[in-house]
Amino acid sequence: MREMANYQATHFKWHCEDGIAVISLDRPERKNPLTFDSYAELRDCFRALAYADDIKAVVFGSNGGNFCSGGDVHDIIGPLVKMDMKSLLEFTRMTGDLVKAIIHCGKPVIAAVDGVCVGAGAIIAMASDLRLAATNAKTAFLFTRVGLAGCDMGACAILPRIIGQGRAAELLYTGRSMSAEEGERWGFYNRIVVAEELDAEALKLAKRLAEGPTFGHMMTKTMLNQEWCMSIDQAIEAEAQAQAICMQTQDFERAYKAFVAHQTPVFEGN
Amino acid sequence: MREMANYQATHFKWHCEDGIAVISLDRPERKNPLTFDSYAELRDCFRALAYADDIKAVVFGSNGGNFCSGGDVHDIIGPLVKMDMKSLLEFTRMTGDLVKAIIHCGKPVIAAVDGVCVGAGAIIAMASDLRLAATNAKTAFLFTRVGLAGCDMGACAILPRIIGQGRAAELLYTGRSMSAEEGERWGFYNRIVVAEELDAEALKLAKRLAEGPTFGHMMTKTMLNQEWCMSIDQAIEAEAQAQAICMQTQDFERAYKAFVAHQTPVFEGN
Amino acid sequence: MREMANYQATHFKWHCEDGIAVISLDRPERKNPLTFDSYAELRDCFRALAYADDIKAVVFGSNGGNFCSGGDVHDIIGPLVKMDMKSLLEFTRMTGDLVKAIIHCGKPVIAAVDGVCVGAGAIIAMASDLRLAATNAKTAFLFTRVGLAGCDMGACAILPRIIGQGRAAELLYTGRSMSAEEGERWGFYNRIVVAEELDAEALKLAKRLAEGPTFGHMMTKTMLNQEWCMSIDQAIEAEAQAQAICMQTQDFERAYKAFVAHQTPVFEGN
Repeated sequence: MREMANYQATHFKWHCEDGIAVISLDRPERKNPLTFDSYAELRDCFRALAYADDIKAVVFGSNGGNFCSGGDVHDIIGPLVKMDMKSLLEFTRMTGDLVKAIIHCGKPVIAAVDGVCVGAGAIIAMASDLRLAATNAKTAFLFTRVGLAGCDMGACAILPRIIGQGRAAELLYTGRSMSAEEGERWGFYNRIVVAEELDAEALKLAKRLAEGPTFGHMMTKTMLNQEWCMSIDQAIEAEAQAQAICMQTQDFERAYKAFVAHQTPVFEGN
Repeated sequence: MREMANYQATHFKWHCEDGIAVISLDRPERKNPLTFDSYAELRDCFRALAYADDIKAVVFGSNGGNFCSGGDVHDIIGPLVKMDMKSLLEFTRMTGDLVKAIIHCGKPVIAAVDGVCVGAGAIIAMASDLRLAATNAKTAFLFTRVGLAGCDMGACAILPRIIGQGRAAELLYTGRSMSAEEGERWGFYNRIVVAEELDAEALKLAKRLAEGPTFGHMMTKTMLNQEWCMSIDQAIEAEAQAQAICMQTQDFERAYKAFVAHQTPVFEGN
Repeated sequence: MREMANYQATHFKWHCEDGIAVISLDRPERKNPLTFDSYAELRDCFRALAYADDIKAVVFGSNGGNFCSGGDVHDIIGPLVKMDMKSLLEFTRMTGDLVKAIIHCGKPVIAAVDGVCVGAGAIIAMASDLRLAATNAKTAFLFTRVGLAGCDMGACAILPRIIGQGRAAELLYTGRSMSAEEGERWGFYNRIVVAEELDAEALKLAKRLAEGPTFGHMMTKTMLNQEWCMSIDQAIEAEAQAQAICMQTQDFERAYKAFVAHQTPVFEGN
């Protein structure tokens, strides 16, 4: 799929406006749990987004006042407790593959979090590039509360890099809920907005990015994730190469010409 | 030692209650400096904890209003200034081995910091998983003040991951004291409590963790430390494996059954 | 050059007092943009600093109310849009080499940021060890606003380690300005001071470091940057070696003797 504006999602909501894909889970009466089906389709959808030239940014939003309640207890946890190791690993790899797909999709992903955002839902928010919270967002990496470890879908690597090792350790060991205020103070949420304006603010931010140099954004995203286990010198060389590539885009020239002409540049993403 | 509830410590205080080991240094009249002996016994004790099934969590507390004043000037620094390189490296490796032992002990370690917490004391707090501070806690990585570098026992790697590179650099270059308020604001301390309640609060938190899925906690701790120099994709695969292992524990099934029966799960750590 | 106190800079301001090198850019009427020449000379100067025994610390200050406006639009961006890949990579590597030179110069570098601090200017502040901001400092990693990616001169690796991945992502994707207040709250700036006192405060901090154990500071700086992609165990071993080296300096002995004699140690940097 090189074009996804008209993509039809089966297990979640999807629509596209002005090059922004807006996704949300669609079982609001149960606070939007994930199922095997929605996990798999989300993974495939984010993988496809890497090639979709018509989508410039993604908003992963809430629905009915909640973001996501994590893996469904009946549809997912019930079957898991009966599985053998081969099937368990197949499942944990599928969930990990969703995080990898979000990270490698090549577009900025903005999570717009209202209400409940727990378990795999908190992971989806964590794997996004930017995060807005409604005032009442409750974010919990509650894996220990279901008898598991905090190391789920990359949380022990990614969360400490967002909020620091000590705060991440507390959330992952205790499974306690992080308030929106804490989340903003700790750097998990970029901003808190009132619930009524959450969708509009996320869309506004996405549009701002979509109107930017989207080839550059793709490279920013790539390098933000690519450089985690490089030395400083390796990272600097990697960026010298990455930015030299971006300097051959027309968007770089467009910005320069606009500046000289005292105009606002119009970027085209190439 | 598979059981340590009745462990007898020689160079520090140790007692065990409800599966929680409570440790503190025991020279309160000198604000609890470390000696060669207490370093070595602490290292061996934390190494043994990795195999002690009856200990679920550790509190490293204060004594007489102070946590630890670091390496004793007379007992440690005096001899060090006369040592040859072979002996110096033996010493710095022993101190580093204490940090490694805390990190690899397999149980959550909670530092409960009152008063003075400096030098190697600050390192012990830093190497713990969670940190509570009394209002008057004074934490200083004061190595430069004794003519040394800030790179002591892993501080240049661990501290930046807790409080960020810029704040860590300031503390390590200047050796200045960090107040409890700064420590909480920067993510070093998870919470500030009044001194009178410090022990009780640390114990309460330790018990909460001890009553959780302790096999899962062990895996959380392992992965929080294991994934530092992995790529994101490697970390996600590592967690897919680690969590699949946890899904075969009975605690996972216990949580599921309790949920279905509208009960609170009782975890047993296996 | 083993001595740089009398170094004569051509493309920026340089003076030395009490072992502190004070650098600032010198085109205040244009808010101190960088040019090809000042980039190259700064790179060479910081490379030389690694060997200059008479310089103990560096202040990179502001001039005429501004720190640096980044790469000059006319002198740098204009030529870049016409370059072939070989020349582009030569340029991005030169800019990266400046960051590497700051990181490897072996002395603490303190950025004293007043007013505009954008593009490569923000990078110079980021690559410094400590950062003071005047109340009105405006710091922007504005590469996307000129059509490029945020991955410039190591920003995608270094900035997340200072302020966290989520806040770094916002600054790098949007190119928006970070206020001094945000910068302090997020850990980018160590402290905010009024503009009138910025130079004096930076100098005071530099002198404090210059009077410390400068061999130790060099090792602190080395290890703060060396350990980014080590495992925890590797970092602890690396510090055991680094600190053992520092324990053979006379400054360590000077501190011990001063302590025993109830005096303040006078460090000499060896």
